[in-house]
Amino acid sequence: MKKISVGLIGLGTVGSGVAKLLYEQKELIRRRVGCEIIVSRIADRGALKKKKTAVGVANENIDTDIVGMIEDKNIDIVAELIGGLEDARKYLLKCFDLGKPVVTANKAVLAVHGEEIFEAAFKSNCSIGYEASVAGSVPIIRNIRESFASDKIYEITGILNGTCNYILTEMTEKNAEFLTTLENAQKLGYAEADPSFDIDGIDAAHKIAILANIAFGSPVNVDAFAVEGIRDIHSYDVQYATELGYRIKLLAIARQTGEGLDIRVHPALLPQDNPIAQVNGVLNAVSISASHAGPQVFVGRGAGAEPTASAVVSDIIELARSKVLGVKSRVPASSFLTEYRKSENVLEKDLNSTKFYLRFSVLDSPGALSEITGLLSDQDISIETVLQKGKAVSEGYVPLVIMTHQVIEKNISKAIEDILELEVVHPEFSMIRVESNHSSSVEG
Amino acid sequence: MKKISVGLIGLGTVGSGVAKLLYEQKELIRRRVGCEIIVSRIADRGALKKKKTAVGVANENIDTDIVGMIEDKNIDIVAELIGGLEDARKYLLKCFDLGKPVVTANKAVLAVHGEEIFEAAFKSNCSIGYEASVAGSVPIIRNIRESFASDKIYEITGILNGTCNYILTEMTEKNAEFLTTLENAQKLGYAEADPSFDIDGIDAAHKIAILANIAFGSPVNVDAFAVEGIRDIHSYDVQYATELGYRIKLLAIARQTGEGLDIRVHPALLPQDNPIAQVNGVLNAVSISASHAGPQVFVGRGAGAEPTASAVVSDIIELARSKVLGVKSRVPASSFLTEYRKSENVLEKDLNSTKFYLRFSVLDSPGALSEITGLLSDQDISIETVLQKGKAVSEGYVPLVIMTHQVIEKNISKAIEDILELEVVHPEFSMIRVESNHSSSVEG
Repeated sequence: MKKISVGLIGLGTVGSGVAKLLYEQKELIRRRVGCEIIVSRIADRGALKKKKTAVGVANENIDTDIVGMIEDKNIDIVAELIGGLEDARKYLLKCFDLGKPVVTANKAVLAVHGEEIFEAAFKSNCSIGYEASVAGSVPIIRNIRESFASDKIYEITGILNGTCNYILTEMTEKNAEFLTTLENAQKLGYAEADPSFDIDGIDAAHKIAILANIAFGSPVNVDAFAVEGIRDIHSYDVQYATELGYRIKLLAIARQTGEGLDIRVHPALLPQDNPIAQVNGVLNAVSISASHAGPQVFVGRGAGAEPTASAVVSDIIELARSKVLGVKSRVPASSFLTEYRKSENVLEKDLNSTKFYLRFSVLDSPGALSEITGLLSDQDISIETVLQKGKAVSEGYVPLVIMTHQVIEKNISKAIEDILELEVVHPEFSMIRVESNHSSSVEG
Repeated sequence: MKKISVGLIGLGTVGSGVAKLLYEQKELIRRRVGCEIIVSRIADRGALKKKKTAVGVANENIDTDIVGMIEDKNIDIVAELIGGLEDARKYLLKCFDLGKPVVTANKAVLAVHGEEIFEAAFKSNCSIGYEASVAGSVPIIRNIRESFASDKIYEITGILNGTCNYILTEMTEKNAEFLTTLENAQKLGYAEADPSFDIDGIDAAHKIAILANIAFGSPVNVDAFAVEGIRDIHSYDVQYATELGYRIKLLAIARQTGEGLDIRVHPALLPQDNPIAQVNGVLNAVSISASHAGPQVFVGRGAGAEPTASAVVSDIIELARSKVLGVKSRVPASSFLTEYRKSENVLEKDLNSTKFYLRFSVLDSPGALSEITGLLSDQDISIETVLQKGKAVSEGYVPLVIMTHQVIEKNISKAIEDILELEVVHPEFSMIRVESNHSSSVEG
């Protein structure tokens, strides 16, 4: 029986998980794939100092020589599992130089250096698998590249960061504040000691950049679109959203419009009956709107050693099947042939148009509501719902919650500026986008 | 640029949809796949008599000569889109005889003749794509065969029949009876003139047999497991289920247990917060529980010309990629290499264990409840909830609804037999399984 040798770069949580999965499931993999897939070498900078070991891999096959492992002629497939930017980029390009197929779980390197990496893979006719880079075990990359290959994709909306989804779910269910919830999440291991990468939306931005890139066939620069995290979500807003029939989620959105790509990451109110509004805890979800397949929703675990290892190994298996067949590259790295990619314009944030949830703290005086709604009307903003709470929250201020109809962002900014100038309005306010009618909501 | 010629067998709704999709999206397909995929011939028995035409296909390329088309050396890939059993089987085997890759949307032929067809495909080293045979545009076949290829699959639970899901959703939302809802569904085109194939669960049984086959690597005979449809679901039951926090869905379940495969199709109460309980209308949903990927949910359109065409064309594209690379078969037809398949025992229905929803009509007399619960207790059945309605529905009978804890089916059958012998109990009753804790429910 044919044997395929895999080399792993990195023996952290994911690397250990991949070695363990390939060892434990070798019998099942043999039954499905018809070959043995073996982790022959692991290279990890701290391997020797920290005396790292891996299930099913002899200690003498674990060392620190990453380049030596990549260059090893016995290694058929390399899996880059170290994360980070510069080193990962260098190792991936080195593999392509040698004509070696690679798998990576590294969203950052693909989001930042994706064009260069995809181009190098394409030129060297090498396969690159990166299913694990977005939404963990949810097979969203394979489905965009293959299952919807004949479909024009209109929109992708995702809950792509498990840490934020866990925090927002806890805030909703326990009526808790952001900071205490974050601290609990850190204690439970659902948030990093330095959580900014997750809670400021950067991780989700990397992931939606990758999905937009392969769905629309256009390079997407992560700096080209607006990214907002969940630090400013107040428990009041979570409560009022629930009262109005919504859930607050950190959404990553990529939409093809007539004017260009509308890409953004921000917290948003989603109607409670939207299928991804009900995806709670650390789970991830992706909804896709495609021309012929119609709306699609995928839900699963977005992180963790086992789900990530499952996604990495599904790519290793695909590359092993190709290796056995003598095929170098089956599906183009970026889902489109390089010569057929088209650079599309990413819309200016100010020109995006959505509904808005606004919360102001207003002194309970006659005429206040009329003044505020007048200023909204001056910017052509019409109102869907007003929720005025009778009880003052602090110092005589009562919360005033307004849901608008669809409006261009620059108009809402101007209206808020004017409203905050009113004497009866406290400077603390909330403005959260509402995604109610987006085309990827699944309706039967 | 390489040109791949496709021949279609059948020019009904799906065949027309496939021709239209390949024609309309040829530019996008070229950008993604790097070759032209053209429908060169269509063979349909009624083509000439009914003067059928297809978008993008010249009339002289549409005829009735199915075998001639299959034998045509210019045809690279054949798509069988006629449905039915015997002819479809014959054409598929003919393709394999000639070493030609095929795509089919035909669940019946795969459920009934799957072993023979998969074996023939494997022996002739031919690819067969059948994504469209289960759950329409939901890419469940590809994901079982590839994304979870390293995972032991524990369970698949699906809403696989859009007609039943539409009827049950309407009954829930409009508090309507089965028959009137079915008639409306027929008027709207969501149910066939002869609806028995759908509403008696046969269609869902075919589909779960295919999924179980490829998930567990075992032949599954559609006659080996219990199949119940939705004809006997009463609007009362839909109402009481809602009151108790459940939704009634027609579920197709395939579960790996220590004793064998637990496979069944029947209506079931699902807790309202179960992710697939909220999948309404004609939509399909599949949840999977896999050893490493964890729980997964997929939702999308299960029928219709465009979603089905999208799934068929995704397979055609996969086979076209292989053709260009000179690859015959990349993934084994049945997901496992033939020599590594193991025939697993399908559990006797009587030995399955679930919770039950029971509804009796009981004369409102003292001691009736005590007698009934006593008979349940005699069979070791413990009770989770009792819902007794004060108001008599007809002739002095009041509804008594009981939710049991987990119990073996043969015990519940015996208890019901005994209960129906009580003088105070009307012969009309309901017994519906409750799927509350199955392992594929996605929890964050």
